[in-house]
Amino acid sequence: METLKQAVTKKASWTTRLEEKQRRVESIKGLADGKVIPTDSIVEAMENLILPHDRVVLEGNNQKQASFLSEALAQINSEKVFDLHMIISSISRPEHLDLFEYGIAKKVDFAYAGPQSLRMAQMLEDGQLTMGEIHTYIELYGRLFIDLIPSVALVAADKADRNGNLYTGPNTEETPTLVEAAAFRDGIVIVQVNELTDELPRVDIPGSWVDFVVVADQPYELEPLFTRDPRHITDIQILQAMMIIRGIYERHQVQSLNHGIGYNTAAIELLLPTYGESLGLKGKICKHWALNPHPTLIPAIESDWVESVHCFGGEVGMEKYVEARRDVFFTGPDGSLRSNRTLCQMAGQYAVDLFIGSTLQMDHEANSSTVTRGRLAGYGGAPNMGHNPGGRRHSSSAWLNMMTSEDPLARGKKLVVQVVETFQNGNKPVFIDSLDAIDVKRDSNLATAPVMIYGEDVTHVVTEDGIAYLYKTDSMEKRREALSAIAGVTPVGLKQSPAQIEQLRGEGLIAYPEDLQIRRTDAKRSLLAAKSIEEIVEWSDGLYEPPAKFRSW
Amino acid sequence: METLKQAVTKKASWTTRLEEKQRRVESIKGLADGKVIPTDSIVEAMENLILPHDRVVLEGNNQKQASFLSEALAQINSEKVFDLHMIISSISRPEHLDLFEYGIAKKVDFAYAGPQSLRMAQMLEDGQLTMGEIHTYIELYGRLFIDLIPSVALVAADKADRNGNLYTGPNTEETPTLVEAAAFRDGIVIVQVNELTDELPRVDIPGSWVDFVVVADQPYELEPLFTRDPRHITDIQILQAMMIIRGIYERHQVQSLNHGIGYNTAAIELLLPTYGESLGLKGKICKHWALNPHPTLIPAIESDWVESVHCFGGEVGMEKYVEARRDVFFTGPDGSLRSNRTLCQMAGQYAVDLFIGSTLQMDHEANSSTVTRGRLAGYGGAPNMGHNPGGRRHSSSAWLNMMTSEDPLARGKKLVVQVVETFQNGNKPVFIDSLDAIDVKRDSNLATAPVMIYGEDVTHVVTEDGIAYLYKTDSMEKRREALSAIAGVTPVGLKQSPAQIEQLRGEGLIAYPEDLQIRRTDAKRSLLAAKSIEEIVEWSDGLYEPPAKFRSW
Repeated sequence: METLKQAVTKKASWTTRLEEKQRRVESIKGLADGKVIPTDSIVEAMENLILPHDRVVLEGNNQKQASFLSEALAQINSEKVFDLHMIISSISRPEHLDLFEYGIAKKVDFAYAGPQSLRMAQMLEDGQLTMGEIHTYIELYGRLFIDLIPSVALVAADKADRNGNLYTGPNTEETPTLVEAAAFRDGIVIVQVNELTDELPRVDIPGSWVDFVVVADQPYELEPLFTRDPRHITDIQILQAMMIIRGIYERHQVQSLNHGIGYNTAAIELLLPTYGESLGLKGKICKHWALNPHPTLIPAIESDWVESVHCFGGEVGMEKYVEARRDVFFTGPDGSLRSNRTLCQMAGQYAVDLFIGSTLQMDHEANSSTVTRGRLAGYGGAPNMGHNPGGRRHSSSAWLNMMTSEDPLARGKKLVVQVVETFQNGNKPVFIDSLDAIDVKRDSNLATAPVMIYGEDVTHVVTEDGIAYLYKTDSMEKRREALSAIAGVTPVGLKQSPAQIEQLRGEGLIAYPEDLQIRRTDAKRSLLAAKSIEEIVEWSDGLYEPPAKFRSW
Repeated sequence: METLKQAVTKKASWTTRLEEKQRRVESIKGLADGKVIPTDSIVEAMENLILPHDRVVLEGNNQKQASFLSEALAQINSEKVFDLHMIISSISRPEHLDLFEYGIAKKVDFAYAGPQSLRMAQMLEDGQLTMGEIHTYIELYGRLFIDLIPSVALVAADKADRNGNLYTGPNTEETPTLVEAAAFRDGIVIVQVNELTDELPRVDIPGSWVDFVVVADQPYELEPLFTRDPRHITDIQILQAMMIIRGIYERHQVQSLNHGIGYNTAAIELLLPTYGESLGLKGKICKHWALNPHPTLIPAIESDWVESVHCFGGEVGMEKYVEARRDVFFTGPDGSLRSNRTLCQMAGQYAVDLFIGSTLQMDHEANSSTVTRGRLAGYGGAPNMGHNPGGRRHSSSAWLNMMTSEDPLARGKKLVVQVVETFQNGNKPVFIDSLDAIDVKRDSNLATAPVMIYGEDVTHVVTEDGIAYLYKTDSMEKRREALSAIAGVTPVGLKQSPAQIEQLRGEGLIAYPEDLQIRRTDAKRSLLAAKSIEEIVEWSDGLYEPPAKFRSW
């Protein structure tokens, strides 16, 4: 062994990352006042703190955007700084992609690109951008500690003091995770803040994790992404919501859950205090939520349906309401919301009974995707929460309710529900023979087809026709039959004879509204606990302050 | 709607949790000096801060134990405080179970109970304890934000200042997650520290998350759980390690991974700089690790095999080595390790190519468990890292290498490897017809059988006989045959004819050492880069300081 050890070439230094960091920090000593970079020096500072080929994680959250820093990054001299490898969980802003046009950045790893998905696909095709991988949020966060360790983190907070202590307030979101990955690997952490102050309401991230703060020219961008105006909820969505409450939540005793962003799940939230109440379900279902502070949940909260809500992020206008309903939400000593995207995604994966979401396309086997031709949208958190976590070992009533086998090693399942109407707007069928994802894989040269939720994980599909209880089917054939029976006049639907359909109903593999004692004619907007944003504000005793674009009064 | 809203009974208060917290905090005003509880007042303080039926999360980590607080909790008057619902991720210390004998606690939710598993099973049988559920670490952490929100958190840190800012140093582990769950839900956070100081080396947890600190009578318990003395590594383990390097790591280009705690994986670590080097694999495999700072990884680090290691926790004696090898580990500005059990489990689940671990029992279908008759051991993190995460969407070479289908929606798989010898000590076969877990389920009245890793997730099984490439089998029958062919003279083994075995080898479903160009006679201890703890210390240039019990010199 002595020989082997001696044969090994000693490394000259084991602190190269630290030395490089110190060199960079030193290089802007003249620019910064301690940890504070003056607002108008940010571009110059970045040109010194960031080097070509750096791996840069930029906070492009689901809601909160480090918009001042991303705009500044797009202004740096691409002869000085080029070919960056960007990690942006949500590619949301034009300059996120401008970076690639300007040659400042070259490669991107991401989780979601909703607003920029068309341009992204085009730039990939034109060779202006190299795509790493499409992730869900927490697998991307996981890689920040393994093989995508950032050299620089650019994030946003509400307030900082001169020591770099941060107050992220209601929108903590992914900030602590991004900062942790860089700060503890001798990376450089730069934080834009709305305000520099001596007294923080609370500390969300300690100053020793932060290298520089800069006061932004305007507050960070924050999108009210989870606000759904009840005026847009249709009778069909109300019918679906009734079926879900009756045929899924009540039947399987769903106590903890996550809802997607759609109007159909907003309808469920608004039916709990009315239809749910009439079924005597208060205190029996929907008690614990992994959910952003949805305004449409306010009537259920006020009616005492909700024991707890843990949030991925905040929601614009909900700040005062959350503070005043502190028994329900996670809040700091200062009273404002504490969100945490990483922990909420983890809880949404492992600790809740049910995930319900929607999709743009679904095939015969219930595989689904929101990635369609020409749109590299990604999926955010849906695949993480919308699968049956193989590492789960604890049980709950709903989870056990999914057991269909007598095998001594049989276990329960997470409920993964997809709710769709058989046709999208524009008369495109949702149920189709083959997902666009397969073509996108080929066209964009991806390693695998970008499927959002795999059919094997889906326990229930709900359409305006009824519910398919896929978890009860014992063969692929039965599965297709059940799905077909609720798929309307789409390419997947209309394949069953009336006798077959009767058999599927008899076997409990599908349920139509009448099987759930629901009259289609009862599915009316009058059932909604609030029919407009204004009525939600009333429910909240004026505590909810909707953004201007949602105000009609 | 107006009627409905008016019909709803207004809650008297939405801040009951906060009010209750304030009442409790106020009740010990006379005892505490600001946030500091005097050491000898801790029992009295707890009797006021904790109420009967409270949900209390106690830091009983894999390594670090809040031992002063658990001892104090066991001393409180059970007429004042009783029927607590305890959440303890690792039930490790006698007083963790004394609490139930004394009537202070009644119910427990946990993840692992290694050292206390026998007594735990007995107490459950005797009705002295009510068991909640068995979890993996991060599903238990997830529930802290959903349906197991704690009213009190009892945790441990290295140092605190008078404002409650905490330095957790190398052993950050699960502390921030437990504190976050309580602190932001108006729970009470009590932290034992080894030292109260004005100047912290860095802040790991901000003071505004902490209600009380107390200086412990002695430093918190910390177990060197991941130290494996190379002297105990056998020739058989070396043979297995060679097969794994050749037949799995090299073949599938495994770049990122987690290792279990066993001697067989320690052997792999110690063979990288010797056998691995001879195969020319440096820089091609095993670059990124989700792993505690294993002393047996030191020769590989010194030989420049390792780019990064992210840690769940620290390891006693590795402090100086980690500080000096800062390019490899995650460290704070102060130089000491930053670990984080939650983030490392998340990364170990979603971001690495491979998990390898061991088990006590395995059945025909490769289902395995460490829960055996009379032992309610739980599993810690193994089920989380040892399954194919259904929410993963990014690819890597190794992951894609597991694809065996031409289906356009086919995807890769995580490599989940189980390495065992066909017989345990005491001549008990590892491969058996039926897992004890099935009997334990019945005897302990569990909802499901406590399986550690399900066969469907296992891609490879390695014994002293060879490797079964289970991921390549296309039927349950082939799977059983492949497993049987490497299961020796156990009830599962010895079922194949020589002709069948030749066919399995030909199809590449199993490999014997000779199929991998490994001579059994080459598998000698002389291949280990270090053959003793002393030699590991030499490799480390004296930076590694093993605990006394590992010193033989």
